Amino acid sequence: MVEAIEAKKAGNFTYGMVGGGPGSFIGVVHRAAINLGGSARLTAGCFSQDYAKSLETGRLLGVAEDRIYQTYEEMARCEGEREDRPDFMVVTVPNVSHYGACRAFLEQGFHVMCEKPLTCTTAEARELEALARKNGCLFAVSYVYTGHLMAKEARRLIRDGVIGEIRVVIAEYPQEWLMDLVEGESKQASWRTDPARSGISNCVGDIGSHIENMVAYLTGLKITKLCANLDIVGEGRTLDTNAEILVKFSNGASGCYWCSQVAAGYDNALKVRVFGTLGAIEFEQEKSNYLTLTLKGEPPRLISRGNGYIHDNVKAYNRLPSGHPEGYHEALANLYDQFLLAIAARRAGEEVCEADYDYPGIEMGIDGVRFIEKCVESSQNGAVWVEL
Amino acid sequence: MVEAIEAKKAGNFTYGMVGGGPGSFIGVVHRAAINLGGSARLTAGCFSQDYAKSLETGRLLGVAEDRIYQTYEEMARCEGEREDRPDFMVVTVPNVSHYGACRAFLEQGFHVMCEKPLTCTTAEARELEALARKNGCLFAVSYVYTGHLMAKEARRLIRDGVIGEIRVVIAEYPQEWLMDLVEGESKQASWRTDPARSGISNCVGDIGSHIENMVAYLTGLKITKLCANLDIVGEGRTLDTNAEILVKFSNGASGCYWCSQVAAGYDNALKVRVFGTLGAIEFEQEKSNYLTLTLKGEPPRLISRGNGYIHDNVKAYNRLPSGHPEGYHEALANLYDQFLLAIAARRAGEEVCEADYDYPGIEMGIDGVRFIEKCVESSQNGAVWVEL
Amino acid sequence: MVEAIEAKKAGNFTYGMVGGGPGSFIGVVHRAAINLGGSARLTAGCFSQDYAKSLETGRLLGVAEDRIYQTYEEMARCEGEREDRPDFMVVTVPNVSHYGACRAFLEQGFHVMCEKPLTCTTAEARELEALARKNGCLFAVSYVYTGHLMAKEARRLIRDGVIGEIRVVIAEYPQEWLMDLVEGESKQASWRTDPARSGISNCVGDIGSHIENMVAYLTGLKITKLCANLDIVGEGRTLDTNAEILVKFSNGASGCYWCSQVAAGYDNALKVRVFGTLGAIEFEQEKSNYLTLTLKGEPPRLISRGNGYIHDNVKAYNRLPSGHPEGYHEALANLYDQFLLAIAARRAGEEVCEADYDYPGIEMGIDGVRFIEKCVESSQNGAVWVEL
Amino acid sequence: MVEAIEAKKAGNFTYGMVGGGPGSFIGVVHRAAINLGGSARLTAGCFSQDYAKSLETGRLLGVAEDRIYQTYEEMARCEGEREDRPDFMVVTVPNVSHYGACRAFLEQGFHVMCEKPLTCTTAEARELEALARKNGCLFAVSYVYTGHLMAKEARRLIRDGVIGEIRVVIAEYPQEWLMDLVEGESKQASWRTDPARSGISNCVGDIGSHIENMVAYLTGLKITKLCANLDIVGEGRTLDTNAEILVKFSNGASGCYWCSQVAAGYDNALKVRVFGTLGAIEFEQEKSNYLTLTLKGEPPRLISRGNGYIHDNVKAYNRLPSGHPEGYHEALANLYDQFLLAIAARRAGEEVCEADYDYPGIEMGIDGVRFIEKCVESSQNGAVWVEL
Repeated sequence: MVEAIEAKKAGNFTYGMVGGGPGSFIGVVHRAAINLGGSARLTAGCFSQDYAKSLETGRLLGVAEDRIYQTYEEMARCEGEREDRPDFMVVTVPNVSHYGACRAFLEQGFHVMCEKPLTCTTAEARELEALARKNGCLFAVSYVYTGHLMAKEARRLIRDGVIGEIRVVIAEYPQEWLMDLVEGESKQASWRTDPARSGISNCVGDIGSHIENMVAYLTGLKITKLCANLDIVGEGRTLDTNAEILVKFSNGASGCYWCSQVAAGYDNALKVRVFGTLGAIEFEQEKSNYLTLTLKGEPPRLISRGNGYIHDNVKAYNRLPSGHPEGYHEALANLYDQFLLAIAARRAGEEVCEADYDYPGIEMGIDGVRFIEKCVESSQNGAVWVEL
Repeated sequence: MVEAIEAKKAGNFTYGMVGGGPGSFIGVVHRAAINLGGSARLTAGCFSQDYAKSLETGRLLGVAEDRIYQTYEEMARCEGEREDRPDFMVVTVPNVSHYGACRAFLEQGFHVMCEKPLTCTTAEARELEALARKNGCLFAVSYVYTGHLMAKEARRLIRDGVIGEIRVVIAEYPQEWLMDLVEGESKQASWRTDPARSGISNCVGDIGSHIENMVAYLTGLKITKLCANLDIVGEGRTLDTNAEILVKFSNGASGCYWCSQVAAGYDNALKVRVFGTLGAIEFEQEKSNYLTLTLKGEPPRLISRGNGYIHDNVKAYNRLPSGHPEGYHEALANLYDQFLLAIAARRAGEEVCEADYDYPGIEMGIDGVRFIEKCVESSQNGAVWVEL
Repeated sequence: MVEAIEAKKAGNFTYGMVGGGPGSFIGVVHRAAINLGGSARLTAGCFSQDYAKSLETGRLLGVAEDRIYQTYEEMARCEGEREDRPDFMVVTVPNVSHYGACRAFLEQGFHVMCEKPLTCTTAEARELEALARKNGCLFAVSYVYTGHLMAKEARRLIRDGVIGEIRVVIAEYPQEWLMDLVEGESKQASWRTDPARSGISNCVGDIGSHIENMVAYLTGLKITKLCANLDIVGEGRTLDTNAEILVKFSNGASGCYWCSQVAAGYDNALKVRVFGTLGAIEFEQEKSNYLTLTLKGEPPRLISRGNGYIHDNVKAYNRLPSGHPEGYHEALANLYDQFLLAIAARRAGEEVCEADYDYPGIEMGIDGVRFIEKCVESSQNGAVWVEL
Repeated sequence: MVEAIEAKKAGNFTYGMVGGGPGSFIGVVHRAAINLGGSARLTAGCFSQDYAKSLETGRLLGVAEDRIYQTYEEMARCEGEREDRPDFMVVTVPNVSHYGACRAFLEQGFHVMCEKPLTCTTAEARELEALARKNGCLFAVSYVYTGHLMAKEARRLIRDGVIGEIRVVIAEYPQEWLMDLVEGESKQASWRTDPARSGISNCVGDIGSHIENMVAYLTGLKITKLCANLDIVGEGRTLDTNAEILVKFSNGASGCYWCSQVAAGYDNALKVRVFGTLGAIEFEQEKSNYLTLTLKGEPPRLISRGNGYIHDNVKAYNRLPSGHPEGYHEALANLYDQFLLAIAARRAGEEVCEADYDYPGIEMGIDGVRFIEKCVESSQNGAVWVEL
């Protein structure tokens, strides 16, 4: 991608990270994705609440010991005062700490890439938005699946009107991993099912929010109301592990979302189908190098990443030829490439409009938090319809 | 299938048919399915409201001219008086005429195989049930997909507890055929979208009802309440062409159904997924020789009809070895085989309990009608939850 | 299919059958396929070498006892003398008896539908060809897979030049059923692996010959030479159960065929891929309602039977709408429909050119036998190239 | 992966690269794969035969200008004399230059990772082997697909005897990219179809050799003889673009390989199927997170990377949880992880046996070259069988 390469030429980016200590998942992935692009270097971190573990991780990664911190507050303060302060901060801690960490960094004027869901309440999310605007900080929320090239191609086809006016959206995100009560053995399961760390929702918060975001990314449609049934499957649990959600969009289209962590046979199967008056598009995260496009009255076509018929804007993201699979790392790396482009432009003194860059911004983060809140509200009131 | 062959040995069955004239779909299929089994002969009919067309069809099929009728009332009366009266009657007319035709035949003591949805109102359906019981008539409703062997295998696996207690059911039935306003050129489209012939619902009535039935057939679960959003997609239409339905089952499980006739890329894609505490089962009508079984923590298995690991009761239905595809005709023929077994037993003077035969009976027909009514009621009241 | 219906109107066809007794496979399938079409009635037979079994089958099927025979010679003679002689004879006995049965019937002037491989030697096959021509008999060889609509559509696309000039053909037909030594328990396995009943080849003869035929049907290409490696997998067996075959076609294209009866995971997976200078076509027997068409530089398209974009000549064969699967029975029934059309035309005194009807004729039967002979010859000489 | 992390801890690895300049494919991929692991830094290079382009690439990647070279001979000599000489060299130039570059680096005692095919002749390959042994250099050949976790799992299952004794191997590698004469516009197409840069074979050399290697990796079987038909499809070309190859293995099993660059609809579809006496395994490169395992008499199972049932040795390679796709970059990164482990051990003064590390070594490279030579020899002599 020409522009991305230009961006990288512009300078050696550095970053700090909160989270990503021993046993964590997504923090490690963020580092690998950044490495893949080869465009930024980790120089500071607070990798664990346990300082010894944080030190262990930091040393392994070559972070100078005096830049490994006990808390993100300390990290924000100290790094904010350095001349060689990082270009941006990455927040990959459990949900309930997103708000605090982001606020600390934004207050010091750092650009931030934060995991989703952005915060636990819409109020917190809006506060971060205001703070970012006030301090001129760029802000990305790592809805990683929007980084897949075929999601981008699907969005382009939809925006270009290829499938006509959207009438129905069917989306799902089933997983199997919480069928057993693995909270004791899995760090991931432990915090995600714990309201104290996860917030008001587990399943909708973790994966339902990806459905909401992907549909929004692909279609641009706004949800006007929803009706959600959240189930708690699993003895002794207090947060949802399965949910079915009906939605209505502002253009009159209807939608149906299902997410589950107790669905045997599914690893991580985000799948979105968008039906319009002229055709349909289907995208599955686990087959992210492909999408299916069907025009009314014609046979389905299996669109494959890397081929000549892909739109130039999407082709520009290719790292590998067709048939040489890209995956999750590349998707996240694509978010970083865009984020770094924006940072580079800012560093070069240019006017930067975040909407011009193809990474999920803070508005998407806010929409995601509101979606979770409204699903919980609906379900708690008997799965009634609630307005958004 | 040994028993079926015995049944056929027991006698040359004969039948009459209402519907199935020139340009019709399902009546022709019923005749082909009966032919495939080779066990019954068409001897009377009222194939069209247009007598000339009825004569044309009857002659082509070798029906004696004096047994081709202008109305089903006449047919019921005349055939009822014959010594060589047919063993059973097949009703394949548009929905609104099911009730009248079935009543006429039941009053004459005929066994009946009727297309779904059974009637337009639950009251009518219950009336038929009472009449059948009073006159000792066997009654089948041709929910054809229950005739697929892999649906039978799925049901057996679920009933045997292989996937544990059911927690979630996700089912869908998308089609593309009504994306365009083809009412002018397609006889099928014309009557199905016309309330005067189709009843209160098109999409839920025609295909949503198959979802309801297949889930009931596979799981035995009863729906206690539902919340349905019915959409009318297509300029000028008055009946639904798309619907999303949330359901709650008596055991506390939840479900999500989607049916659509405006979904580009789908021919006739009934698909039911049942998730239990120990595993999951997936069955697709268009791939009816297969089902997917996943046990918790194990890889999905592609179960294939005709193989040695299939349950003996299901194997007994095999007409062809594995890898030699059976399809829609065979599914319907399997319903007829069971129906004829029951008729043969009755003819042989045996006590017949319809529940012992594996064809959809009148209770399933009634449940189907109530489901349609409740979906329409829910949607008309703003997609609120309604009890069943 | 309009013409087929006309043919049926023209008269009540009757037929006799050799083979198809208790425990047999393909004879039963032929009867069901004929039943499905509803166009011919079984009136004579020699269903088993064991007369008691033959009687058992004949009675079950309603054949008059005096038309159930001890040998096909007797049957040919007696039925040949009747005024109400059958319109055609169906030969479904093990391979080695094809020649004798066909000859007996042809000598009496009967039209014949014979299972493949036609005979055990090319000489026998040519003799039958001469006899059929001399006595004015129509002759079909039941290569059933040519009856699939999507095979017909694939052929049409290829013949129309849609994929350009053919360069490469890759075809396979793997099965699992002979992995174990099931000869003791399976009547099918017993005769197919026995040279005295099966002839010089088992695997190539049974399924390799379907590859050869399907490629010829789809492409019209002639094989000029081949190089075959036949393996005998299975302790104590004397006939091949696996084979890999390289072929060269008259237009310079090359091909690679693989057939196996010891391939775990495959039921009956005939699959042919044809690659031309403009595109490619893929057809799988087990997914016979679909084919994949790819034009150079464009995404693969999943063509689905029954849709509007299918060629009219192929559409005419539709028995069911798209998404309502047709299978093996329908494929065979389609051969019979064409065969009966030809018989009806002949009965009506018309000049009949068999090439105008879409069923595999005796030339295809001869090509099949020669293919088998040449594969065995090649393999026995060290898998050398042999000319055809 | 614990050991890999330990290796990385052991030191900051550095490397030099030949190839990978503007417009190249595989060199860029090697750099990204190394980045992904985060374990080595590029410090020297000769990226293009055009020095200006080489400088451009080197600067972009932050290589010091005095370590960007005009020729690999110069690079080998100068880097060999430095105190901070790179830990290893990566060779990603067109085939004909592999030998020269590798020899130059080996003579200076550098460990080498070289692209496949290793050299243009077996003699050259053996010379490199001797040189590496003499100078104590580690040597890896980047058969990237052996780095996929599910290839490793397949190998483990086969080695553990899960599918019994191997009887048949069916493998293919079709691509579409050379259907048109794109030599003018594609740098890749230009050199690969040119004997002066590609050597004696294009299609077998580039992708057929991946089949040979993957089968060897999975099964450990040695080819004893082969019979190859190479086709040149494409006006004016002089090297093969399609090939069908029969092989015989030392244990008596047979195999059939097909590779093509003129197969519409295929991006890069390496697929290997191994059939044994107890079951079968299927692995497709484009679906590299999965493999299919079928045990005789049981339904096929879809094994998915990252799940609990995967062998611990393979699990250790996981970078992402199940359902979060890994792809081509990760596969190559896995080769580097193993290669770096070996280098680290060597650096630590340990005795290193390359066979203990899971990367393709020079013996695999030699086997690959001989396979290509023998295919060409066979085809040039009329596709006769040749011994290996």
